[in-house]
Amino acid sequence: MGSTFGKIFKISTFGESHGPAIGVTIDGLPAGIIIDIESIQNELARRRPGQSRITTQRKEEDEVEILSGIFEGISTGTPMAMIIRNQDQKSKDYNHIAQQFRPSHADFTFQEKYGVRDYRGGGRSSARETAARVAAGAVAKQFLAQAFGAEFYAYVSQVGNLKLEKPYNELDLTKIDTNDVRCPDGPMATEMFELIDRVRKAQDTIGGVVTGVIKKVPAGLGEPVFDKLHAELGKAMLSINAVKGFEYGSGFEGIKMNGSDHNDSFYMEGEKVRTLTNRSGGIQGGISNGEDIYFNVAFKPVATIMQDQKSVDNAGNEVTVSGKGRHDPCVVPRAVSIVEAMSALVIADFYLISRTNKLYY
Amino acid sequence: MGSTFGKIFKISTFGESHGPAIGVTIDGLPAGIIIDIESIQNELARRRPGQSRITTQRKEEDEVEILSGIFEGISTGTPMAMIIRNQDQKSKDYNHIAQQFRPSHADFTFQEKYGVRDYRGGGRSSARETAARVAAGAVAKQFLAQAFGAEFYAYVSQVGNLKLEKPYNELDLTKIDTNDVRCPDGPMATEMFELIDRVRKAQDTIGGVVTGVIKKVPAGLGEPVFDKLHAELGKAMLSINAVKGFEYGSGFEGIKMNGSDHNDSFYMEGEKVRTLTNRSGGIQGGISNGEDIYFNVAFKPVATIMQDQKSVDNAGNEVTVSGKGRHDPCVVPRAVSIVEAMSALVIADFYLISRTNKLYY
Amino acid sequence: MGSTFGKIFKISTFGESHGPAIGVTIDGLPAGIIIDIESIQNELARRRPGQSRITTQRKEEDEVEILSGIFEGISTGTPMAMIIRNQDQKSKDYNHIAQQFRPSHADFTFQEKYGVRDYRGGGRSSARETAARVAAGAVAKQFLAQAFGAEFYAYVSQVGNLKLEKPYNELDLTKIDTNDVRCPDGPMATEMFELIDRVRKAQDTIGGVVTGVIKKVPAGLGEPVFDKLHAELGKAMLSINAVKGFEYGSGFEGIKMNGSDHNDSFYMEGEKVRTLTNRSGGIQGGISNGEDIYFNVAFKPVATIMQDQKSVDNAGNEVTVSGKGRHDPCVVPRAVSIVEAMSALVIADFYLISRTNKLYY
Amino acid sequence: MGSTFGKIFKISTFGESHGPAIGVTIDGLPAGIIIDIESIQNELARRRPGQSRITTQRKEEDEVEILSGIFEGISTGTPMAMIIRNQDQKSKDYNHIAQQFRPSHADFTFQEKYGVRDYRGGGRSSARETAARVAAGAVAKQFLAQAFGAEFYAYVSQVGNLKLEKPYNELDLTKIDTNDVRCPDGPMATEMFELIDRVRKAQDTIGGVVTGVIKKVPAGLGEPVFDKLHAELGKAMLSINAVKGFEYGSGFEGIKMNGSDHNDSFYMEGEKVRTLTNRSGGIQGGISNGEDIYFNVAFKPVATIMQDQKSVDNAGNEVTVSGKGRHDPCVVPRAVSIVEAMSALVIADFYLISRTNKLYY
Repeated sequence: MGSTFGKIFKISTFGESHGPAIGVTIDGLPAGIIIDIESIQNELARRRPGQSRITTQRKEEDEVEILSGIFEGISTGTPMAMIIRNQDQKSKDYNHIAQQFRPSHADFTFQEKYGVRDYRGGGRSSARETAARVAAGAVAKQFLAQAFGAEFYAYVSQVGNLKLEKPYNELDLTKIDTNDVRCPDGPMATEMFELIDRVRKAQDTIGGVVTGVIKKVPAGLGEPVFDKLHAELGKAMLSINAVKGFEYGSGFEGIKMNGSDHNDSFYMEGEKVRTLTNRSGGIQGGISNGEDIYFNVAFKPVATIMQDQKSVDNAGNEVTVSGKGRHDPCVVPRAVSIVEAMSALVIADFYLISRTNKLYY
Repeated sequence: MGSTFGKIFKISTFGESHGPAIGVTIDGLPAGIIIDIESIQNELARRRPGQSRITTQRKEEDEVEILSGIFEGISTGTPMAMIIRNQDQKSKDYNHIAQQFRPSHADFTFQEKYGVRDYRGGGRSSARETAARVAAGAVAKQFLAQAFGAEFYAYVSQVGNLKLEKPYNELDLTKIDTNDVRCPDGPMATEMFELIDRVRKAQDTIGGVVTGVIKKVPAGLGEPVFDKLHAELGKAMLSINAVKGFEYGSGFEGIKMNGSDHNDSFYMEGEKVRTLTNRSGGIQGGISNGEDIYFNVAFKPVATIMQDQKSVDNAGNEVTVSGKGRHDPCVVPRAVSIVEAMSALVIADFYLISRTNKLYY
Repeated sequence: MGSTFGKIFKISTFGESHGPAIGVTIDGLPAGIIIDIESIQNELARRRPGQSRITTQRKEEDEVEILSGIFEGISTGTPMAMIIRNQDQKSKDYNHIAQQFRPSHADFTFQEKYGVRDYRGGGRSSARETAARVAAGAVAKQFLAQAFGAEFYAYVSQVGNLKLEKPYNELDLTKIDTNDVRCPDGPMATEMFELIDRVRKAQDTIGGVVTGVIKKVPAGLGEPVFDKLHAELGKAMLSINAVKGFEYGSGFEGIKMNGSDHNDSFYMEGEKVRTLTNRSGGIQGGISNGEDIYFNVAFKPVATIMQDQKSVDNAGNEVTVSGKGRHDPCVVPRAVSIVEAMSALVIADFYLISRTNKLYY
Repeated sequence: MGSTFGKIFKISTFGESHGPAIGVTIDGLPAGIIIDIESIQNELARRRPGQSRITTQRKEEDEVEILSGIFEGISTGTPMAMIIRNQDQKSKDYNHIAQQFRPSHADFTFQEKYGVRDYRGGGRSSARETAARVAAGAVAKQFLAQAFGAEFYAYVSQVGNLKLEKPYNELDLTKIDTNDVRCPDGPMATEMFELIDRVRKAQDTIGGVVTGVIKKVPAGLGEPVFDKLHAELGKAMLSINAVKGFEYGSGFEGIKMNGSDHNDSFYMEGEKVRTLTNRSGGIQGGISNGEDIYFNVAFKPVATIMQDQKSVDNAGNEVTVSGKGRHDPCVVPRAVSIVEAMSALVIADFYLISRTNKLYY
């Protein structure tokens, strides 16, 4: 259980870090979408390790193969399956941790849950799985761009104590990919880069925040009660490896305000109902109101560090876990692609559901 | 869509604020659970309006009627349906807002989504719906207490700028219900009460934080990838009216730390694997590790204020929305019961799913 | 589990034969449907016991109460809940079978499955539950009539050995309700009535077949692979109490034919693609092709007979089960309303799903 | 939609007849199952074309590759993905039907539904997809054999007018695979073989019946109301290409009986509750009672015939569809493997669900 996301635009991922391949099926992609494979590959490149000095040096080519659902470049309405072969599976790297529980990893909990586990690189719990999400998200983006011109952005807004105070709407979001950190504010990006590099040299890791922004979403997406748009969005983000928190619109800061200051007044902009402010984050009562959707996602410091740590093993012995291999000192620069992908998956699903909301539309 | 929560322990709520009744069905409650109706009624009393000066003075008796699923005080494994009649439905109160979009409410988005709406008291978007969740949560609590002794707590940890700095494990959680604010720290509760009362007198509202704690959850609950325990918990909390953010364990603060400080070391306590610290919040890789689960939920200031506000109506005219009726100046004292209920629903579902994880168990 | 049907137009029933009430929620009913409560009540009257000498004399008023989802006579897009109070709950009637397993009933299997059961009148396994389906089906019919003019028919085509050989398209389906058997062929209806009455006097029961017909369904409903239109329709029918078989189009007879005779040739009727014959039963590859959908549903003889039968009890003792109470000698005259209801539920769901199949439509 | 089957033991298939590959993911397979790949390959060999003179001469090697979910020969509880490359994809074979609607195929309905289709070999509607089901079913069989020793059988009981009158329990089910027809009665198998061969020489096709038998299923599987065991089983069978009908236990014949003859009396066999007869087909109230489960599945004559047929094309022109390629004269000999596979998938799902039915078990 747990490997499927979405109700109508439904993706299911599979695959372990060091098995033959990871992959994803999309069931519910409407027929008639033009699918550009190169765009999928480009999104994977943004997530791929080894992009710069501040990301892991593991090599993953991440070449996607489409197995079904496309005919002559067009989606046919049937499940689209994509696989990515695992190329850098040095299983021997992992024998030393076969019986150990790495601190703040999923080794112990998988062992408790299943009684057996693929310990190589974290197996199913590895963030390698997110490559499959990025591939699916790239398809969702193409679908939504063709459906109503939706735009998805995500950028690094905090690393450790370095926090970008400017809100998203004072930034030039086209600059996100112009630096290795993926922070659209150049000077801050430089500071963040240096911080991550210092942490890397100290053989340590650090956390950060990714801010997501979704533009041009029509009003009416999201379902009342349990499947509120921000609730699904929150779940989507919290399901990404290392995420510890989610807030949207005014978020945790907004609680300090009075209602009279916090409320977003409605006004007419021509024929369109707009709000003067957007503390609602584009979502009211769990349903999009046509304004920009924005939110923050907190990522903890990566658990794998290049230092010795105390732990126990399967048999209950005390052991020392040694840091080996190649890992990210900070996950957020690569995580922006995953945040965008998950955003697109959430919107794709709600858009299709919304087609069933009214008799006439 | 959107009125169902859970995969196996599955609840579905129905009902509008001013219709004949609200209700809930629980499908998937195992047979053989002793159901105490008085406990359900007691939980409803904690959520009910009119408890004190700082909650709304609306009268809702909230008497639950069980329609099915119980025979001679024992669950039979068939759906348990409960309804609560709406008693205080003064529909005339709402004629003045029939065509208006109240700021930061769901009036506009429901209208856009469905083309029609029950405007009385917010209809389906009203927090009245959460009474049905509390009833279902009370059943989940009884189930889990009988299954493995699970304990659920929630308390107010912040109102506006007043923040309780002590972590949950330095508080006496049995004192939550000893004051009207439902904050287990007496002096802080008094301060919070006074703040809320000032806000009330100013005909305004204010936000707050509810902290949730779940104890005695066995290791192994939660599913990998998308249905991680904290992802479902986050969705559950974000689905509660007025919630803007969720964090668990070290949360948004944890991002500032280095991995070497943040990681929770494992050690043996007798036969049991434990962690020295608990920044993981009892969840690793999306699966419970047997430690306490704890999290924060941010509630925005209530949108309904007793002041005039600018807005527009269905026809696109500028209007003034006047504050009328009886509303909460701050929602968190009543929300603790909803947070507990949703926690119990999440754990109940994952507990049942976990029974299918291994061949032998 | 098991009390929910449908993916988007999703109904969930609850309630036991002798509990306070049975009921149903419909989640996914689009907004904007005009709901006529009297039509719902009329459908319930067709299923209700006590209609004639050949149906059970139990009294069930079956008055439906709508609790939610409707505002000023129009569906609002939120869950529509309906309950029907149980009025004729003579629980004492059932004490004699509290510990006994009635032959070919669900007493033993419920006991094995749950370890506890509400033995009164079969509890959850009673066909009383189907009243909730009929109410939901009546809503689905109204929805589909307003959406595209769909028509649903079901009639008795066989009782015991008495089989109506004429196919549905040689019958006047407007005559179904003109006799107590609900067979549109008058002379056959008379024969069937006499057979059922003889069986009744012999304190026995007999089986039959209900034929279902769905007209004016647009091409394109039904999903490939597992959720084929006839597969869901088959499941829907097989889920009705006492059903032992389902066939559609040429059914079991068609297997004797050669492909060259069995295939339905396409031709053009103006702009419309039609088939010359309709052995496909209006469904090809699991998807409607615009022709009439027709199918047969086999109902076994009712298990409750007014005779003594050998059996065992909870404790493994041999016992004699005595026939008491008021029961149907043949279930098919009342079952036509259930067959129609389930048909409408299947089509409603596929119609809504079909709105998500293509980008442009 | 429609490519997923099961709630907990959930399979999703993907792939078109002439795309790069078909495949299946199994989510919900418990951890700890020993998986024998050769057994999967053997089941695929039973379904594979080209086995004898009376099956299609198409060549499909059907070599399965496992991509995930298994570690050191044991299931890990994570999704198991399997793919089978398509080797015999002579796309040029299909250009002549690119615009034509083959009679009684899914060409027209796919075109109507999606506005686009992969016409090569039927694309997604091809029975090629069932190879993925057989692979998944082979895993389900291994799981259930290890869980409680379940046994699955299916055999050909009718071809055209040739009907095996002996019930399943008078046959030696170990002889099913001893002849090309897969009928365990030798003389009847010979007759059937000759009939199919005559039909083949006449460039025609013919229908048949597959009888399924499931042994050693514990009492208590299947869910009340909509998800009755026989309802899911019926849906599973009806979802197989070319199936037109399903009946279980006494089926369509049983309707002619009186209840007093039809009912299955209970008796004690040692500690075990048994039934003297088994007209219930091992299922009562939708729940298994521990007796053998048996059922019949009707397959229509294959629609692809080696003769000219009248039809229309995408543009509404009258055309002649010519029979080309290599096809089965009768599908039932190969279909037994699919019937067994689907049976195993149904039982696997209900077995896992049943683990959640009671608090103590």
